[in-house]
Amino acid sequence: MDEALIPRLRAIVGDRGILTGEDVRARSCDPFRAVPPLGPVIVRPADTGEVAAVVTLCATQSQRIVTHGGRTGVAGGAYAGPEEVVVSLERMSRIEEVCGVSQLAVVEAGVTIEALQSHVAEQGLFYPVDLGSKGSATIGGTIATNAGGNRVLRWGMTRQNLLGLEAVLPDGTVVCAMNRLVKNNTGYDLKHLFVGSEGTLGIVTRAVVRLVPAPASQAVAFVSVASQDGLLALLGRARRLSTLSAFEVMWPDYYELVAESGTGRRPVEPGRAAYVLIEAMGYNERLDQQVFDEFLSEAYDVGLIMEGVTAASKKQIAELWRVREAAEVIVREMSPFVSFDISVDVRKVEAFVARAKDLLNEAYPMVRTVTFGHLGDNNIHIGAHVGRDTVAQEHRVESLVFRALREFDGAITAEHGIGQLKRGFLPEHKSAGEMTAMRRIRDALDPGRLLNHEVLF
Amino acid sequence: MDEALIPRLRAIVGDRGILTGEDVRARSCDPFRAVPPLGPVIVRPADTGEVAAVVTLCATQSQRIVTHGGRTGVAGGAYAGPEEVVVSLERMSRIEEVCGVSQLAVVEAGVTIEALQSHVAEQGLFYPVDLGSKGSATIGGTIATNAGGNRVLRWGMTRQNLLGLEAVLPDGTVVCAMNRLVKNNTGYDLKHLFVGSEGTLGIVTRAVVRLVPAPASQAVAFVSVASQDGLLALLGRARRLSTLSAFEVMWPDYYELVAESGTGRRPVEPGRAAYVLIEAMGYNERLDQQVFDEFLSEAYDVGLIMEGVTAASKKQIAELWRVREAAEVIVREMSPFVSFDISVDVRKVEAFVARAKDLLNEAYPMVRTVTFGHLGDNNIHIGAHVGRDTVAQEHRVESLVFRALREFDGAITAEHGIGQLKRGFLPEHKSAGEMTAMRRIRDALDPGRLLNHEVLF
Repeated sequence: MDEALIPRLRAIVGDRGILTGEDVRARSCDPFRAVPPLGPVIVRPADTGEVAAVVTLCATQSQRIVTHGGRTGVAGGAYAGPEEVVVSLERMSRIEEVCGVSQLAVVEAGVTIEALQSHVAEQGLFYPVDLGSKGSATIGGTIATNAGGNRVLRWGMTRQNLLGLEAVLPDGTVVCAMNRLVKNNTGYDLKHLFVGSEGTLGIVTRAVVRLVPAPASQAVAFVSVASQDGLLALLGRARRLSTLSAFEVMWPDYYELVAESGTGRRPVEPGRAAYVLIEAMGYNERLDQQVFDEFLSEAYDVGLIMEGVTAASKKQIAELWRVREAAEVIVREMSPFVSFDISVDVRKVEAFVARAKDLLNEAYPMVRTVTFGHLGDNNIHIGAHVGRDTVAQEHRVESLVFRALREFDGAITAEHGIGQLKRGFLPEHKSAGEMTAMRRIRDALDPGRLLNHEVLF
Repeated sequence: MDEALIPRLRAIVGDRGILTGEDVRARSCDPFRAVPPLGPVIVRPADTGEVAAVVTLCATQSQRIVTHGGRTGVAGGAYAGPEEVVVSLERMSRIEEVCGVSQLAVVEAGVTIEALQSHVAEQGLFYPVDLGSKGSATIGGTIATNAGGNRVLRWGMTRQNLLGLEAVLPDGTVVCAMNRLVKNNTGYDLKHLFVGSEGTLGIVTRAVVRLVPAPASQAVAFVSVASQDGLLALLGRARRLSTLSAFEVMWPDYYELVAESGTGRRPVEPGRAAYVLIEAMGYNERLDQQVFDEFLSEAYDVGLIMEGVTAASKKQIAELWRVREAAEVIVREMSPFVSFDISVDVRKVEAFVARAKDLLNEAYPMVRTVTFGHLGDNNIHIGAHVGRDTVAQEHRVESLVFRALREFDGAITAEHGIGQLKRGFLPEHKSAGEMTAMRRIRDALDPGRLLNHEVLF
């Protein structure tokens, strides 16, 4: 990029708003590896006006911009090339308002999920988008990627928890759509255009998010089932829990690895078709538990559950969740691996998993996999290790799994997004009409392709 | 319009697909009045291919199109001028698939809500968008308008119950985005662009809708409260019911009219600050009722409820709902009236209602109003009668109420939409940036403004 722009950017955001040199190279655009921005400058505006001024200046210079939130995305959406200016929202981290009566919070885009959750907890409220990376992930970043997490089944993804937003378009126009109303049918609901657009249509600067009363009850069970049909029947019954908040399935390849890892995570015997962590959250501790227990015992009585344990304390709840969140075991036992975040219709999951593993086995007879996911919302994670050169094989491994996915009408990313890393696969998985419509919208809002140029398509 | 186009349209859709003459004039574009389409032809394609061919032909001739679903919209979105071709989706009414395991249905746009609900009920499933006009309202029309209804509090508006759709763009391009997955972050989620766009961006031809298990329990109470603060406190407590499905508030002007109408609708004594119908739906009949009863008795014990009755049978549930749905009493006692479908932050509702009534009173000392609505989702309905010439005064009455609304950051339509009838008010109620973004999107997809030309902006 033209470094003559830097003093002009500094004039907008001040000294605190500019990082250069070592401060840039010390950052990473990837949560797992050191991938510094390759350009000379990171711009950190302090408010929407500064964002708009920075974007306007860049637009007049045809200067490309990559936007940074918490840089926890794993799809390369934050990667920035040598010709790109990074705009980071990190200084815009004010929680402007929390209202318990209206059940909403007004925040700047740089607020982290965890900061928001802690803040609203003081008023007995909860922001239901709940991610592993919530300590770093920001509201703006999770809007741009439509982040999901563990409680989508109950409260939805980021999209469903957003009432309004403010965004700066690629030409510097500020779109203030800070709606606070659940029902508002006055024209296009513009926030949905920005949600999941991965920063290609504008920079989200502020948001109004929906809050829910903090749950007062949490019931968790860990069970095993005898067959895939039984698993789907159990899911069908679980959907009749008004309090259902998670239905997390672990395949034998995952559970056996964790159960035999010597880390004490073995709530039920291995050797079954699948393992499920079922969670319910509500507001009437005694009766919610009773509803949950009735569901479990009925499922057991009709033979859907082979073996099961129910958590009797917060500590046991945490222990059962640790079985499902055994990332460090997988890292220790399976590294390096290619990881997948995919979506398949629940009816087709088993056939898809079998087909994907067949394709991998054919190409890599020594392949090892772990398979698990949020089955209640179609989301399966697969980790595949194909030997010491797994990293070099990544593209081929992905191609095989995505080929199976296409046969079963799945989605190549359920929640992580396309970013730069999955971009090459997108056109094969979208219809021609979808690609046309997406291009027209992007061209209309960003004719110069200045924002997140390498992202999506 | 150029009538030479009619034979060319007939060549695409066949004789059954064309209505002319009396068949056109006998229709109405408005559910309450006779407002026939003013053009010479209604085109009724039988499938997506025919829709695309019709739209393509019209595009090449710069021929404007107005799309018809069930014609139940009250904002004039279906009104068609002399130069416009009407495209009706009425022959596209197939239910292609219902899947209980995946909890979804695949339908053509012309299916009515009621037909879908009846069909899926056979499998123990429920489509949760539940409207008074469901016998005529179609899936396509409710997508175009993002219809709401009585159970938004629990299951959301149409937007939240839609997984995918297929739409024909104004140039005839078919966008097939028939996603079936809860989680799918592969690019822009295009369905959200069409939801609530009121037919200005494309013609929705098919959809994948989300289904839920048919509720097995329904508990309803009708209560009175002593103050607005008490009303909000009661709402706060009701939000902690995981099964809450409706929180319908009636102001004294509404309740007293209905209670004194001689129609036997008087479950509690008049003379209170507000009246509320509270409903909960779930899947465990015995325990759901217990949770509901505990909520009610606690609210009573702390003094939030003045008087209340609980329905003990389906019949009593229907009777309590009849108090809230006393349209015929209002029509009989208040006609003519101007009706409002507006949204206001719950914290501001009381101040807004007072301000709106003050403004109306100043202009029309004899004004009579009824006020009620889905308070749980901000949605208030007001009916205002200002004398025999109410219809002639409509615009002035609207201007007064909308002036109050602007002072309290409300929305001029919560669920009915802008259509043609509210179009003049839209720019005053949206930010400049929102208007700019909406125009850019519409221009990008419909540069000739061929679809629903007079709608929205």
